[in-house]
Amino acid sequence: MLALGRSISRKLPAHGMSSCPGAQYLTAREQHITWHEGGVSREAKEALLHQKGCVVWFTGLSGSGKSTVACTLEHALYRRGVTTALLDGDNIRHGLNCNLGFSEAERAENIRRVGEVTKLFVETGVITLASFISPYRIDRDLVRQRMGCRDFIEVYMKIPLEVCESRDPKGLYKLARCGKIKCFTGIDDPYEAPERPEITLDVDDPQGRRQSPEAMARIILAYLEEHGYLRTPLSNNAVKGPSRGAAGLAQKKVPALDYSI
Amino acid sequence: MLALGRSISRKLPAHGMSSCPGAQYLTAREQHITWHEGGVSREAKEALLHQKGCVVWFTGLSGSGKSTVACTLEHALYRRGVTTALLDGDNIRHGLNCNLGFSEAERAENIRRVGEVTKLFVETGVITLASFISPYRIDRDLVRQRMGCRDFIEVYMKIPLEVCESRDPKGLYKLARCGKIKCFTGIDDPYEAPERPEITLDVDDPQGRRQSPEAMARIILAYLEEHGYLRTPLSNNAVKGPSRGAAGLAQKKVPALDYSI
Repeated sequence: MLALGRSISRKLPAHGMSSCPGAQYLTAREQHITWHEGGVSREAKEALLHQKGCVVWFTGLSGSGKSTVACTLEHALYRRGVTTALLDGDNIRHGLNCNLGFSEAERAENIRRVGEVTKLFVETGVITLASFISPYRIDRDLVRQRMGCRDFIEVYMKIPLEVCESRDPKGLYKLARCGKIKCFTGIDDPYEAPERPEITLDVDDPQGRRQSPEAMARIILAYLEEHGYLRTPLSNNAVKGPSRGAAGLAQKKVPALDYSI
Repeated sequence: MLALGRSISRKLPAHGMSSCPGAQYLTAREQHITWHEGGVSREAKEALLHQKGCVVWFTGLSGSGKSTVACTLEHALYRRGVTTALLDGDNIRHGLNCNLGFSEAERAENIRRVGEVTKLFVETGVITLASFISPYRIDRDLVRQRMGCRDFIEVYMKIPLEVCESRDPKGLYKLARCGKIKCFTGIDDPYEAPERPEITLDVDDPQGRRQSPEAMARIILAYLEEHGYLRTPLSNNAVKGPSRGAAGLAQKKVPALDYSI
């Protein structure tokens, strides 16, 4: 029933009171509920959150620091009052994709599903941080194509294999080298680097010093700021200066609500 | 590779600048980015959004009004400044679950995946409206078990088959009756009603008048209000009255931020 074969699954899909005890809580405002056939638009949700939805897609070898930079970035965004979701192997491989292995077709399906989930988050206005090795270029490009370019920010963790292997935070490279893990990216499975990522994070800074996760997160934060993801369209001209900060939330403008939707 | 067989898939899984041109946008605040191994907690995200994540799970026959009530509820929540996600056949069957059909095993996998996606949304603090026929009790109960009771609000659209069939908004009952659609819930496929749903929405109100979608949405909104989903834990005592309203957003309290996380 499941079409997981490479030739099939890799095509983009066509676009396409009864018992309630709370009646005493009803207010006049709630009497104004009106019938709607369609849901709330993405633009309205983004205006409410005062941000633009997008996915920051981290790709790179195991041990390249994807999740560490993603977590550091998420905390930095939180301090600015930004609503985020963090998707990684921990919450995807044990949940949504617990029935997938690591063959090429299953890796493709893994990334396809993650792409579809990030699309749902982005349509809710959430800035979504996706941290996956995602070794095949075609898988990442299919997600990019499905999302639309503006919603997809590819971050390439350009960390040499020898650096990742020397870190080996989970001891996986050691196991892969002695053959106890098969199909390990970078050892006996390929990694295809992005050709035109939005952001490349090098192991060293221009002065030749090793870059910290904080410095890397700062680069991405600057990108999001510069490209308008941290402001709503309605407030592009209203917000001066580069940062609202979490403490500035109380002063944030309430977006004009469109009751016609 | 995919374990879709009923006996396997239905068990709950164990728990478990390089090139960036935006450097000139960095501010002093951004220098304070600190290293984090784990992401931002659910509680922190909920405090930021001033709401509690949960899924409102609509179950019922085709034509019972699940999506209409869900859309109406979503707009009502939006007017109160609540961040929501709406998941239904339109955005799931054409995206995440485009490779699933309608056999019992595939319906089970459909609901399992939707459950996992709603869990991710709920952990982001989003109030998630899931509108699916979800005819099998075990599938819904597995989602409930995976989410935790407090996060799962089952709404049973208790609308008689003859009413749904007389509406037949998509002409599907007609096709099912003449055999052009097989395995149609309520006709030649079973629907198992919930035994203890949090909310039951009857076709008529206690006075015997047909209930409108607006009245049904109002019941769910009252439930969410009564059970504290529309307030953060930090503001339980601070917020008086039953509703903040969208226009009250500017006055909403900024949650105390926990920088230790």
